[in-house]
Amino acid sequence: MFDIIAFDADDTLWHTEQLYSMTQAKFVNLLSSYHSQEWIEERLYAIEMRNLHSFGYGIKGFTLSMIETAIELTQGQIQGKEIQSIIDFARDMLKSPIQVIDQVEDVITSLAQTYQLMIITKGDLFDQETKIARSGLGGYFAHVEILSDKTADSYTAVLRKHRINPQRFLMVGNSIRSDIVPVVAIGGQAVHIPYHMTWVHETVSSLEQSETNYYELEHIGLLPDLIKRLTAESACT
Amino acid sequence: MFDIIAFDADDTLWHTEQLYSMTQAKFVNLLSSYHSQEWIEERLYAIEMRNLHSFGYGIKGFTLSMIETAIELTQGQIQGKEIQSIIDFARDMLKSPIQVIDQVEDVITSLAQTYQLMIITKGDLFDQETKIARSGLGGYFAHVEILSDKTADSYTAVLRKHRINPQRFLMVGNSIRSDIVPVVAIGGQAVHIPYHMTWVHETVSSLEQSETNYYELEHIGLLPDLIKRLTAESACT
Repeated sequence: MFDIIAFDADDTLWHTEQLYSMTQAKFVNLLSSYHSQEWIEERLYAIEMRNLHSFGYGIKGFTLSMIETAIELTQGQIQGKEIQSIIDFARDMLKSPIQVIDQVEDVITSLAQTYQLMIITKGDLFDQETKIARSGLGGYFAHVEILSDKTADSYTAVLRKHRINPQRFLMVGNSIRSDIVPVVAIGGQAVHIPYHMTWVHETVSSLEQSETNYYELEHIGLLPDLIKRLTAESACT
Repeated sequence: MFDIIAFDADDTLWHTEQLYSMTQAKFVNLLSSYHSQEWIEERLYAIEMRNLHSFGYGIKGFTLSMIETAIELTQGQIQGKEIQSIIDFARDMLKSPIQVIDQVEDVITSLAQTYQLMIITKGDLFDQETKIARSGLGGYFAHVEILSDKTADSYTAVLRKHRINPQRFLMVGNSIRSDIVPVVAIGGQAVHIPYHMTWVHETVSSLEQSETNYYELEHIGLLPDLIKRLTAESACT
């Protein structure tokens, strides 16, 4: 029924958002003598959104946005050593150990016996590659695609490149915006496995969400049974 | 004779090094009241090299390295607005118009009629993608591969993915280190087209160079004739 089962990586295979969230807490702490947590977070998010079209997703763009936010919120009074500590936050993030999410290894190992698996993720090329290598899971995936953004067009390009029929493609991920909506839009199937924290940018309004048709699971451990059920149903029709 | 002809992008299809070089001149100017040009450039290069394994290649990593260098060289005395101007340098680089190198368009248009063409480049995923789009040349290339680094292993992975026999693969580029040495090492053929300026990191010692076997052209306009000659020779043997 499926030629390829593709997985998002960050917050689907391993924990990521908590790393951004911890770093943001350190950043708020650095500026706590200037502003309230709410205002710092609001300005950081606004500057990240403004910078997305020039820097793209990933830790390096996030770091440049933290530096710009610190300069703006201190009216240029921020000290060199404080800027250095922001860059050190980034270096800590980049070398932070990969924490694979519960049951991921069992599920991936088991599915890889029957299906071709793929990773489709977005962000910094270099950072994503080293995370896949450090996760120890790389060997289970026949293909890895690192995209600058996940849109209907970028999924179409990946599927065309690998000659995959969208109707025989299943995407599994934690982001409605990036993993579900564009996949369903091009005729693929998608499984949403929510993560306990989601970056505001990756959330979608209930209006957008109501238009899509996808499966939702509480955790990845339930994926093999869902796939068995879908395959059985498909065999009977 | 060739199933794929692949091109490096930066300083092979369009000018890039001069953009880094101009930015570095602005950076030196920013710190000119603290240190000599030579010392600023020496420290920047050392910090870039130290950071390569955490930030990878590309404008965002270069920018973070400039910021760290500025903090180090001013012992933290650098002002917020000066750090902001470094980030603005990066933004200028990212939106700078693409200047396609002389004769590239004619050569690519003509070769694309006979061969499958590919781009193999390294650096920031997002930046490289927007450059390919802005160059107007994207449509001539059947495949685009953006790598975090160009090594014998990463070329092997690309060739395997596209099921290309290395002996039927030709790589064209300006960097001996990235475009020539690793390709020849895996049994491919390579054409070196030097650019008038080369980042120190991309140069190789004459010892390494003497071990490789490749073609060298003065400019890309000479490429179609070389390919015709190689194809004719191959047909006679």
